[in-house]
Amino acid sequence: MKNYSIVSTDQNAARTELHDKLGLTGAEVSINTIPAGGSVPFVHWHKKNEEIYGIISGSGRFEVDGESVPLKAGDWIRIAPQGKRRMFASEESAISFVCIQVKAGSLEEFTAGDAEA
Amino acid sequence: MKNYSIVSTDQNAARTELHDKLGLTGAEVSINTIPAGGSVPFVHWHKKNEEIYGIISGSGRFEVDGESVPLKAGDWIRIAPQGKRRMFASEESAISFVCIQVKAGSLEEFTAGDAEA
Repeated sequence: MKNYSIVSTDQNAARTELHDKLGLTGAEVSINTIPAGGSVPFVHWHKKNEEIYGIISGSGRFEVDGESVPLKAGDWIRIAPQGKRRMFASEESAISFVCIQVKAGSLEEFTAGDAEA
Repeated sequence: MKNYSIVSTDQNAARTELHDKLGLTGAEVSINTIPAGGSVPFVHWHKKNEEIYGIISGSGRFEVDGESVPLKAGDWIRIAPQGKRRMFASEESAISFVCIQVKAGSLEEFTAGDAEA
């Protein structure tokens, strides 16, 4: 069995979930686009998972625990499991982003501590 | 303490590591650019960590276990810890990508199984 798997995604699709497509075991990663003026329709939080969002293009804002946090391309945000979150696209542009779900506290060593050349 | 942290990155910088900047506990995430004609200077593999790469812009290729895998914007690739990997930009363009390191096998429930609205 090969040590890699690969998939091509449409960065403008509403949502592409990679866990099953790539056979991920340490994360769920999704690529998402919310149209201008739109939003995720509900607030949510997590039981165990830390979420990391990266803005690929466009702009918008997060509401986290009732606070408004502006978002633009190149921004990366971590939200703790218990943070109550909801994302909005701006009125002027769609927002495309990566969402990474990982179990909070699961990472041990990384980069130089985990890699071998 | 707030349930979120945020940082703005330059998507064309050589490398921006987010673990310490965001206080990540379940992943290391880095944003990387290799210039046209360039490559990571060595092959590496990991002891425990699955890596997930997402191509933001440009093109190039991975060598994984000696096999050449072409890469373009929108491609996402999982590499198992033991996969021997090296990334190259194409001769014509730089390649910018996200690299996610997570402990293989660490994810339990996710999305509907972990979230509460």
